[in-house]
Amino acid sequence: MADPKLFTPGPLTTSPSVKAAMLHDWGSRDGAFIDMTARVTDQLVALVDARASHECILVQGSGTFAVEAMLSTAIAPGAKTLVLANGAYGERIIEMFDYLGREAIVHRECETTAADVARLDAALKADRDIQFVCVVHCETTTGILNPLADIAGVVSAAGRHLIVDAMSSFGALPLSVDNVPFTALAASSNKCLQGAPGVGFSIIDKAHLKTCQGNSHSLSLDLFAQSKGFHANGQWRFTPPTHVLASLDQALTEHANEGGVPGRYRRYTENCRTLLEGMSGLGFQSALDAHAQAPIITTFLTPEDHRFDFDRFYRALATRGDLIYPGKLTNADTFRIGCIGDLDKRDITQLLAHIGDVLAEMGFENGRVSA
Amino acid sequence: MADPKLFTPGPLTTSPSVKAAMLHDWGSRDGAFIDMTARVTDQLVALVDARASHECILVQGSGTFAVEAMLSTAIAPGAKTLVLANGAYGERIIEMFDYLGREAIVHRECETTAADVARLDAALKADRDIQFVCVVHCETTTGILNPLADIAGVVSAAGRHLIVDAMSSFGALPLSVDNVPFTALAASSNKCLQGAPGVGFSIIDKAHLKTCQGNSHSLSLDLFAQSKGFHANGQWRFTPPTHVLASLDQALTEHANEGGVPGRYRRYTENCRTLLEGMSGLGFQSALDAHAQAPIITTFLTPEDHRFDFDRFYRALATRGDLIYPGKLTNADTFRIGCIGDLDKRDITQLLAHIGDVLAEMGFENGRVSA
Repeated sequence: MADPKLFTPGPLTTSPSVKAAMLHDWGSRDGAFIDMTARVTDQLVALVDARASHECILVQGSGTFAVEAMLSTAIAPGAKTLVLANGAYGERIIEMFDYLGREAIVHRECETTAADVARLDAALKADRDIQFVCVVHCETTTGILNPLADIAGVVSAAGRHLIVDAMSSFGALPLSVDNVPFTALAASSNKCLQGAPGVGFSIIDKAHLKTCQGNSHSLSLDLFAQSKGFHANGQWRFTPPTHVLASLDQALTEHANEGGVPGRYRRYTENCRTLLEGMSGLGFQSALDAHAQAPIITTFLTPEDHRFDFDRFYRALATRGDLIYPGKLTNADTFRIGCIGDLDKRDITQLLAHIGDVLAEMGFENGRVSA
Repeated sequence: MADPKLFTPGPLTTSPSVKAAMLHDWGSRDGAFIDMTARVTDQLVALVDARASHECILVQGSGTFAVEAMLSTAIAPGAKTLVLANGAYGERIIEMFDYLGREAIVHRECETTAADVARLDAALKADRDIQFVCVVHCETTTGILNPLADIAGVVSAAGRHLIVDAMSSFGALPLSVDNVPFTALAASSNKCLQGAPGVGFSIIDKAHLKTCQGNSHSLSLDLFAQSKGFHANGQWRFTPPTHVLASLDQALTEHANEGGVPGRYRRYTENCRTLLEGMSGLGFQSALDAHAQAPIITTFLTPEDHRFDFDRFYRALATRGDLIYPGKLTNADTFRIGCIGDLDKRDITQLLAHIGDVLAEMGFENGRVSA
C-alpha cells in the first residue's frame, strides 16, 4: 500500500528523492559530512538574504528544540522580553520562559486575531526596559499570519531585538533581513523546506551572537557553544542526525529547483486556494478571515450536525490515503488541513473528492455538509 | 561508489534494511505511528528486563540530549550527586551539572583506569547526603568498561540512586535491572542498536519518575512531561523524527533476529578480538589493558615514528572505504577503531589488510610499524 498523503503541518509528505537521500551512512567527523553541514547552513542563511550579517546554527530535535535553543542563547538571563501570543506556539514560548525563569510580559490576542502592532509600539515606547520582542510568524494553531514586516519595523525603530519563530513560514513565505530586520529566527527541516524531521536551526545576528556566551541553560541547546564548535572544525559537538541532514541537503536542492521561496509560495498558494474554495463548496466554514490566512495550513469549523463525527471522518479519509489533522483552537471545535509538503493541486483536488464521498457516506445529501 | 564502512563509535554503519525503513512518511499523530512508538519503547525496556519496574521515555537528539534530559528530570535540583568520571563522557556529565547549577562531587580516575568501587563505597558511607551516583558504563573515550554490577551493588546497598550513561553499551553488553539495579539509564538509537542517529531514550524507575515533576530545566528535555504526554495519548509532545524512529523500529527487529544482546555481544566480541590481534600483529599497541577492554571501540597509541602521519593514514584508509576515528585521550596521542555497527569479522579482516597496505605505502617494512 502506498504511503498516506500527509495534509498536516508536519511531519509532512516528502519527495521520494528526499527520502532516498537517507539511504547512505555518513561519518559525522569525515570531510564529506563537514562539507554537507557547511553547504546546508550557507543555503539556509542565504534564503533570508543574511549571509553577510547572520550565522546559521543547526540544532537537532524538533522545531521546539530549535526555538528553546534560540531563546535560551539569544536572550540574556537578566533581559526583559515581550511575547506576542495568538495561538499554541506563542503559548509554548511563554512556557519556555517559565522553564528558563526569565522575565516575559505577554500581549495575548485571540487565536483568530493577528498581533496588534499599535499596542506593541505603545508598549515599547512606554517601557524602555523591554529588550526583546518574540513573535510567531505563522501560527500553526490556525494558520494565521502575523504582520511580521510591520512588527519588525516597530521593533527596529525602537532599537530593540526581534526574535522570530518562523517554523511554519521559512522557505515559503517571503522573509528577508532587508525588510524584516531580526536578531534571531528559528525554523526546522520539516515544514516548508520539505526535509525529514529531526533537525532545526537558528539564524542569529553575528554581532549579537558574540554577546551570548554563557546565556544558555542547557549544554545540548547552547547555540553559542555549537557555533564555536562549527567555527573550530566544522563539526557538530554531538553525534548529528546524519541521515536527516542528508535529506535536508537534498530538500534544499529541490527547493532551489522549484524556484526558491517564490516558487514554493506559488504552489502552496494554489494548494490553499483550491482547498479553501473546494471546502467552501462542500459547505465547510473556515475559522479564519481570508486576509489573515497564510497558505500553510487551514482550519475549518467542525459542522454542528449529528451526522458529522470527526473520528469517523478522519478514519474514512485515512482509508483513502489522506491524513488530515485535528484542530488546536481552544474556543471552537475545528479540524485542520495542511497545504504544504510534496503535494500539488491534483492532490488537493483528489482530497476534496474523497471528502465529498465520505460526507455522502455519512448521510449528507449530495456530499455537502449544509443545504 | 559504495558507502564507506564506519569503524567509529557512531554514527555507524547501519544495515540496508534499517536505512530502507526511512523510505516512508508517517503522520506523527496517526495510529500507525502511535503503535510504532509504543512498540519501540516496549522493546527497549524489555532489553533490560525492566517492563514491570521501569518506563522507557523517548527523546529526540543525540545521546547527549538523552543524558541531559535524564539528569535534569531524574535528579531533583536540591539533591547531591556523586559522578564517577574516567573519560570525556564522564566530564560531559560534570559539565551538564554546571549548566544545571546542581551540586555534583566528582571521583575522577585517569582515562585508562576503571572506576574505583571501594572509594565509592567509602564515600557513600561517609556522606549520607549523596542521593545519586552517576556513571558511564562503557567510556567511548577509550572503550574502557566500568564495573557496573559492582557499582550498582554498592549504590543499592547504601540505598542511593544509580544513574547510568549506557550509550555505548546498551543492546550489546549484558545489562539487566535484576543484577544491576538502577534508577535511570540513558542510551540512543545509533550505537549498539544500529539504528539511524537522532533519537535517544531514558529508562526510568516508575516509582521514582512519579517524584520528578518540575525537576527539569528545559521544556524540550523534560522527560516527566513527555511521559505524561505518552500516557495521555501515546503521542510525542513535539514533532518526532519519524523516519529515524522507523529505522530504530526495524533495527530492533534485526537485533532480536540476531539473538538479542547475547547475539550482538558475540559478533562484537569477535570483531574486537580480530581487531586487537590483527593490530598487535601489525605492531600497534592498545591503550587499554585487555581486562578493561569492552568490545565496542578500541584505542591504539599513535606510533612514535616519523613515517607515521595520522592524517595521511586516515585519508589512505578513507580512499579504501574505511573510516576510522581520531583519539580522544587527553594525555596520549591515540586513534580509535570501532567494533560496532553492521560489520563482521570479514570487514575487520579487510580493514586490517588495508592498514597493512597503507603502512607499506608509508614506508614501513613488511607493512608493520615496529620491527
